[in-house]
Amino acid sequence: MSALAKHRFDAVNKLQIDQPRLLSRISALGEVGAIDGGGVCRLALTDADRDGRDLVVCWMKELGLAVSVDGIGNVVGVRAGREDLAPVMTGSHIDTVRTGGRYDGNLGVLAGLEVIASLNDAHIVTKRPLAVAFFTNEEGARFAPDMMGSQVYQGDLALEHALDTVGIDGTSVRENLQRIGYAGEAPVGNNHVHAFVELHVEQGPVLEHEGITIGAVTGVQGIHWTELTVEGVSNHAGTTPMALRHDAGFVAMRIAAFAREVAAEMGKGQLATVGQINLTPNLINVIPNRAVFTLDLRNTDADALKKAVDKVFAFAFQVAEEEGVKLTHRPLADFDPVAFDERIVARVESLAKEQGHSVRRMPSGAGHDAQMLARMCPAGMIFVPSVAGLSHNVKEFTHAVDIGAGANLLLSLMTELAEQP
Amino acid sequence: MSALAKHRFDAVNKLQIDQPRLLSRISALGEVGAIDGGGVCRLALTDADRDGRDLVVCWMKELGLAVSVDGIGNVVGVRAGREDLAPVMTGSHIDTVRTGGRYDGNLGVLAGLEVIASLNDAHIVTKRPLAVAFFTNEEGARFAPDMMGSQVYQGDLALEHALDTVGIDGTSVRENLQRIGYAGEAPVGNNHVHAFVELHVEQGPVLEHEGITIGAVTGVQGIHWTELTVEGVSNHAGTTPMALRHDAGFVAMRIAAFAREVAAEMGKGQLATVGQINLTPNLINVIPNRAVFTLDLRNTDADALKKAVDKVFAFAFQVAEEEGVKLTHRPLADFDPVAFDERIVARVESLAKEQGHSVRRMPSGAGHDAQMLARMCPAGMIFVPSVAGLSHNVKEFTHAVDIGAGANLLLSLMTELAEQP
Repeated sequence: MSALAKHRFDAVNKLQIDQPRLLSRISALGEVGAIDGGGVCRLALTDADRDGRDLVVCWMKELGLAVSVDGIGNVVGVRAGREDLAPVMTGSHIDTVRTGGRYDGNLGVLAGLEVIASLNDAHIVTKRPLAVAFFTNEEGARFAPDMMGSQVYQGDLALEHALDTVGIDGTSVRENLQRIGYAGEAPVGNNHVHAFVELHVEQGPVLEHEGITIGAVTGVQGIHWTELTVEGVSNHAGTTPMALRHDAGFVAMRIAAFAREVAAEMGKGQLATVGQINLTPNLINVIPNRAVFTLDLRNTDADALKKAVDKVFAFAFQVAEEEGVKLTHRPLADFDPVAFDERIVARVESLAKEQGHSVRRMPSGAGHDAQMLARMCPAGMIFVPSVAGLSHNVKEFTHAVDIGAGANLLLSLMTELAEQP
Repeated sequence: MSALAKHRFDAVNKLQIDQPRLLSRISALGEVGAIDGGGVCRLALTDADRDGRDLVVCWMKELGLAVSVDGIGNVVGVRAGREDLAPVMTGSHIDTVRTGGRYDGNLGVLAGLEVIASLNDAHIVTKRPLAVAFFTNEEGARFAPDMMGSQVYQGDLALEHALDTVGIDGTSVRENLQRIGYAGEAPVGNNHVHAFVELHVEQGPVLEHEGITIGAVTGVQGIHWTELTVEGVSNHAGTTPMALRHDAGFVAMRIAAFAREVAAEMGKGQLATVGQINLTPNLINVIPNRAVFTLDLRNTDADALKKAVDKVFAFAFQVAEEEGVKLTHRPLADFDPVAFDERIVARVESLAKEQGHSVRRMPSGAGHDAQMLARMCPAGMIFVPSVAGLSHNVKEFTHAVDIGAGANLLLSLMTELAEQP
């Protein structure tokens, strides 16, 4: 190690993020789209999302980052390195579900900014550039699929296809991007990133339950999202004998209940959720002629996930046939399980120990932008605990000390990766 | 029989309603609040309901009826008799469900006007007055309970209680009655009616299936309506192990599926319908923290109905406990089975035969205003076939020839009852 390198190494090793500054940014961003109970509603590409984006872009510029916006509205802020190489990137998303919390996604973006701010304060310039990104529509709560921005960024989802996507309110990604002023010029689908690391709250109960501070995320479970539509015949609830019914609502609810039975029967981390159902005409005394509902199946094991999907669909078509209704389905998302880069997973684990934290390897239950980036470069994630495992809930919370631990680990890992040849 | 009585008897016996005139009124009223597919949307006390009321009141006045509006918005048009006695009344309702047809309710009111018009044309005055009524909010699709107006008219439902009822859009019966100008002055709860007969479409498949023209309705099955609310915990659909969930949506849908199982198992005319469900936040990847849904159970046998209610609720509380969610319920309607006056049932049957129609005795699957009137006077109903049994459906239809048969039977029965001492 040269004298200069040794000096830089020592300076970086002593470096700590400014925890109050990071918390204050989380708090300020949490005020944008704030809802009762301490939560946030910033559905993708709404006015609230725009306001949140404007705030983060303002911070990026204050920190001296070169900000670009691409065609799907992904925002990347780059800090130049000593050499003009592919950057080490971090980031996440700032869109939320309708009843979201302040940490999901936001922590990863703002911790990235805090890494930049800490390096700025210490006047340290890394060999490789550093980049902080927030990707459009990670949640998928308004437009399906989720992780839309990062998938377009990586290149597997065509920009035009994503722009044409129509959301739950009948408007498209394209028109909303234009409306909020985030239909950018930067190209998509041909980016170069040296490595990607995302800090995120666990969104589940495991770390807290086991009293562990850091999760070294090994991968992301596979996700299968489908929208099912049942079409039956509306009729009077009091005059139509049970045997002559074509009840779209019953079929939908029977399938939903069955999906839960499949998860219980398969065990081993098979998850099944029906979070959304809409009946037509949705009246107390009218047999529904239409039911539209969503099915969310997840598993870390690709074969098991496929088995669960097959089981639910076989049952669904059987019930539909018995009831004499029409069943159609539309895939909304279908992601195989993802394995993160073993070198990054191992380094998250060892860095956590070096910094005095308890750590465990674990899969992610939720989908994350990092899994899209994993298709183009070595990628990994750092989890910090969620109190009571609450997520997608206004009561979502992570203790300041855990946020600090995660952000410091991110700082160490990024600066280390940024010195790689 | 005196010469005058004989003359009157012969004149009445030859009398026929004017079928095209009746059909033309059905068609004209069907244009008010018309929706795609030939249906009607005139939810109670909406602007469309007001427009329909205005049209029918206009016709009542054209026919010389003395029109009164009571405190719950029931409208009664009275044609004076030769003597000042309690009237023979017919009528029904003109409110519809959101995706209703042209005949449900409307036929009974407009056939009543056609009876009046036919007697006017023939210059026949009956001994007792004749009355044609339309009662407020029979459907219960906007405000619960259904049959609200007729129950207030009869006296068992307190006017003030009914006026305070808040509907699905958060506004009250009182403010809507005032808004549409149908908060009338006529008293409620102390009316005198000699007999009540209601002509209605069957709303079920039985008459058409058996090729029969007239149903002599023996009574109405019991109805139990409940709104159930399940309160759980919102959480991330991908990170919350199945065993740690408090999924309000799952519990609601499992109960709904079970209600259907109970109906299948009990058979013998036990009906079960879950027509309405609303999840919160109703997003694909969020475990619902709240589900509000309705349960509609019906049976002609009071004991069997009670058994069905008990079974569903026992199961509901068991599932709620297993899932760790809170279950509450609110009764929306609870009507015991009703038996109509045997003399009227028998006379509907014999008159149908005299007029050359096939006829069968049958219970009503749906609730009707006649069952409220049955608490205060001899009451009965005449059913005519519904094509394909469709009801609460824009495709609801009854053939003109059947409408004519039913209206002529109503004419005969009313004029006969109106000569009773």
